[in-house]
Amino acid sequence: MSQTLRIGIAGLGTVGAGTLNLLRENAEMIAARAGATLQVVAVSMRDPSKKRDVALDGIRVVSDAATLADADDIDIIVEVIGGQEGIAKTLIERAIANGKHVVTANKALIAHHGHALAQAAEARGVVLAFEAAVAGGIPIIAALRSGLAANRITRVAGILNGTCNYILTTMASEGRDFDDVLADAQKLGYAEADPSFDVDGIDAAHKTAILASLAFGTRPDFARMHIEGIRRITLRDIEYAASFGYTVKLLGIASMEGGKLLQRVHPCLVPNGSPLAVIPGSFNAVQVEGNAVGRVVFEGRGAGAGPTASAVVADLIAIARGDRYAPFNVKADALHVAEPAALEAHAGCYYLRLSLKDEPGVLAEFTRAFAEQAISVHSITQRAVIAGHSAQVIVITHDTSEAAVKRAADTIAKLPVSVEPPVVLRIEP
Amino acid sequence: MSQTLRIGIAGLGTVGAGTLNLLRENAEMIAARAGATLQVVAVSMRDPSKKRDVALDGIRVVSDAATLADADDIDIIVEVIGGQEGIAKTLIERAIANGKHVVTANKALIAHHGHALAQAAEARGVVLAFEAAVAGGIPIIAALRSGLAANRITRVAGILNGTCNYILTTMASEGRDFDDVLADAQKLGYAEADPSFDVDGIDAAHKTAILASLAFGTRPDFARMHIEGIRRITLRDIEYAASFGYTVKLLGIASMEGGKLLQRVHPCLVPNGSPLAVIPGSFNAVQVEGNAVGRVVFEGRGAGAGPTASAVVADLIAIARGDRYAPFNVKADALHVAEPAALEAHAGCYYLRLSLKDEPGVLAEFTRAFAEQAISVHSITQRAVIAGHSAQVIVITHDTSEAAVKRAADTIAKLPVSVEPPVVLRIEP
Repeated sequence: MSQTLRIGIAGLGTVGAGTLNLLRENAEMIAARAGATLQVVAVSMRDPSKKRDVALDGIRVVSDAATLADADDIDIIVEVIGGQEGIAKTLIERAIANGKHVVTANKALIAHHGHALAQAAEARGVVLAFEAAVAGGIPIIAALRSGLAANRITRVAGILNGTCNYILTTMASEGRDFDDVLADAQKLGYAEADPSFDVDGIDAAHKTAILASLAFGTRPDFARMHIEGIRRITLRDIEYAASFGYTVKLLGIASMEGGKLLQRVHPCLVPNGSPLAVIPGSFNAVQVEGNAVGRVVFEGRGAGAGPTASAVVADLIAIARGDRYAPFNVKADALHVAEPAALEAHAGCYYLRLSLKDEPGVLAEFTRAFAEQAISVHSITQRAVIAGHSAQVIVITHDTSEAAVKRAADTIAKLPVSVEPPVVLRIEP
Repeated sequence: MSQTLRIGIAGLGTVGAGTLNLLRENAEMIAARAGATLQVVAVSMRDPSKKRDVALDGIRVVSDAATLADADDIDIIVEVIGGQEGIAKTLIERAIANGKHVVTANKALIAHHGHALAQAAEARGVVLAFEAAVAGGIPIIAALRSGLAANRITRVAGILNGTCNYILTTMASEGRDFDDVLADAQKLGYAEADPSFDVDGIDAAHKTAILASLAFGTRPDFARMHIEGIRRITLRDIEYAASFGYTVKLLGIASMEGGKLLQRVHPCLVPNGSPLAVIPGSFNAVQVEGNAVGRVVFEGRGAGAGPTASAVVADLIAIARGDRYAPFNVKADALHVAEPAALEAHAGCYYLRLSLKDEPGVLAEFTRAFAEQAISVHSITQRAVIAGHSAQVIVITHDTSEAAVKRAADTIAKLPVSVEPPVVLRIEP
């Protein structure tokens, strides 16, 4: 217990301050579990004069984060600045080069540069840990690296963005529109002033890229990710989906399809019997399917000071204990470059909402579009007639290809009876 | 990758054969993740002449499991024989004494003798790992040991017995009685011929004792566990509970209450909004509450060849990687002996079903019993009148003590208007 690990925290925002507070609050217990004292010796903050909610007695405060990487009295860098380039990247590269372990919550950086950073960390014999980068307090990185390591993983699917899940859950429970709920979420601090990273799916995509790498032993490959956000999700589709027993969720999904890697983030309909359908508000959840374990689901808070600090400190404890693993579970040089699967080739069930003129003969016209594509239809239901002329018809398909559904939707959009282009949403198990 | 770890599997039942098969099926991937080849060199089976579904070419077969502990060509013993005493205990003690790592799925053994075995393993510098002992394929031991290690845990609650969850789920979904569903479960192989270990809560209690030790840094203390099974759960109570928005589940719960450890296994009413309420069929789930992470829930299959083998092999991979941790997360000598909390002092909400004569003035009589105990009642609802004279009255309380509820129930049982003693079930968040 005499060993002390000296930590430098780069960035003293919510997560940095949360980490410092957690290390203090649970200090004795953490030391017992880590077999070492975890001592924060320095922090960086852009404006050291700014008042913080956290006491910094005895802790060196610097304004240039990168200098932490050169400090002789620091063994581990905690990087919680964020951003895929810039200061966070410089800091981590320098810290690794100087033989310091790195713990980061930076999903963008790991999704984009994870492979090169892992190579550098392995070459230098230091740990690069990023449990906090995905799903906050849920120990999903550790589960993929260790607890589920015996499995050939076939699919990982997760609710990885709490802002989107909050918006979708609130739209459904309160019967409100996207813009309305988003504006409220921004007021409450659940959504950023510029919400693009969240609602356009970028944040979930960063996390999905990291999960895919760990699950499949492939290099993180953000560039091949198919990304759709939730801006186009209407209350109408949420309500129709509910009437068919589905909940609309934004999922990040990585799967091996015919030996190729499919990575995607998009809203989809999840059957209400599925564990992901019931994940409420700002919670996250990750579902993993392995050849031995079957389906495993992890649920918890995906953001916030406490949950994220829980993940950061778990990484620190593992380093203190001497766990020395490859960042992506197998050696960086053994990570293969996955051949990307085309989303068009993906097979699944689909929900289509057609807005059609309320006229005789309409049924025959649009069903022909499905028949032409050899799409097997599970159900066709007329839900409402709007403003006297537009009938809302919901079509649920059996398993079919994305390409066929897109062609059918395009054909229907061009029919004279079509009032608006069809809304197409994927159904995911 | 040149290192080979030589494994002896004691017991070639479902889990032993499943482990052997998984090590073969995913051999290449496991070797990449473990950084070593995991080779099974010997297995034990009581009757070596018995035909098995698994090929044993090149593997030594012995009838006396304990001899595996003495074999010079074995580095790790996998114990999947089971039983809290006898051959499993002898084998593990000898294996540890001989400097071999031990991986076991034996919850009874760990719940009863975990502390002594951990001391022995630590003294000898070997790993004693038991991920497979709790919740099958769910990596909950690893999560408590590592992923959530930064947290002061306040409560662990789990659906830890798939047989009970299957029975309760089926009673609810098919409107059938306990005996009827149990008989079917036995036919289908979901329940043992002697189902006591499962339906009387013993199996869940073993697992709860292990979780409590990991969560709270206390010695496993099976003796202080309060245990009730599900035999007394009627379809009527399941249906009434449902009408109030609750699902009946058998939970194992360990919590710190006023610095004392409360360990219990009993059926209870779980609000339908809770993640544990929706866990279907033979699945398991564990909910952990930590001071930083908040509530985290893990769900998956709790039994069967694949899930259990997934956990066994995860432990083997961790050993191969060189992870060297104390079995109960902190050194065995640092585990403290928890003072047990009295269940009577526990505060919670309660469901009571009263069977009363359908007469005027009855309400005043039984409500007095609650008033005398200063129990705050949330709702009183008359549900049915049976056979012309017994009214079924459901009382849901606010937070109150177990002792007060028991006294009120005893008083009501003695009232002249009481037809049957009240049924009392705890409500758990």
